[in-house]
Amino acid sequence: MTPQRVTLITLGVRDLPRSRAFYEAMGWRPTRPQDGVVFYQMHGAVLALFGLSDLAEDQGRAGAALGTGAMTLAQNFTTEADVDAAYEAALRAGASGLKAPRKVFWGGYSGYYADPDGHVWEVAMNPFWPLSADGSLTLPEGE
Amino acid sequence: MTPQRVTLITLGVRDLPRSRAFYEAMGWRPTRPQDGVVFYQMHGAVLALFGLSDLAEDQGRAGAALGTGAMTLAQNFTTEADVDAAYEAALRAGASGLKAPRKVFWGGYSGYYADPDGHVWEVAMNPFWPLSADGSLTLPEGE
Repeated sequence: MTPQRVTLITLGVRDLPRSRAFYEAMGWRPTRPQDGVVFYQMHGAVLALFGLSDLAEDQGRAGAALGTGAMTLAQNFTTEADVDAAYEAALRAGASGLKAPRKVFWGGYSGYYADPDGHVWEVAMNPFWPLSADGSLTLPEGE
Repeated sequence: MTPQRVTLITLGVRDLPRSRAFYEAMGWRPTRPQDGVVFYQMHGAVLALFGLSDLAEDQGRAGAALGTGAMTLAQNFTTEADVDAAYEAALRAGASGLKAPRKVFWGGYSGYYADPDGHVWEVAMNPFWPLSADGSLTLPEGE
């Protein structure tokens, strides 16, 4: 049994200063600088940037070619305009656009971009998923 | 500018029932069943399982080979015994062990396993990072 939680998300990156500059341009502010790793406090969890080869070694498989794309991170917003603004901010910061935000079959509005290492972010508005005041997401009863 | 938050983590999976059974065996309980997607409520965010090819299509690149490993999810615990128990539970549920938990250079205790699709989870105890009562992680001041 493991608890139903994630406390830390780590992105393996090829060039730590480049990635840090990208997230800085997105408005993210790291905690106190540390050697070889960058931490961002989120609500109840932390996002980390860590060297890609360091990450492979830490996983016990030094030299492995680690892939991206099959795990995505989403930011939910309350309006389509907020989704558009976040997507445009990402492109200005140097993200690669994968799919410009658009209405999608499940009734919401969603787009995708990739960060400098190909880590995939979704920006979305789901009319059935109201966000809490602090920006966190708790699914409605019955969902 | 984007908010410093992740509200949804999506894992692309090759076989949704198999993945659902894996997370079920780990003790995770999904929300109301839906077609083609499984949601787990976490603290303030949601984890989703979604078909790998559906995810590629949703990202606007149908047919793309999406990779795993360069983005990892961690569960922090308060004791080494809790880390060991979570790691062993994962192996019993069918995870592939990558690195059995051990003391690591930064002063903590950490192991890694991969879920049936190669999504990488870390289980760790960091003595410098106390967890909140609800299991969430807020970095100490000055970190």
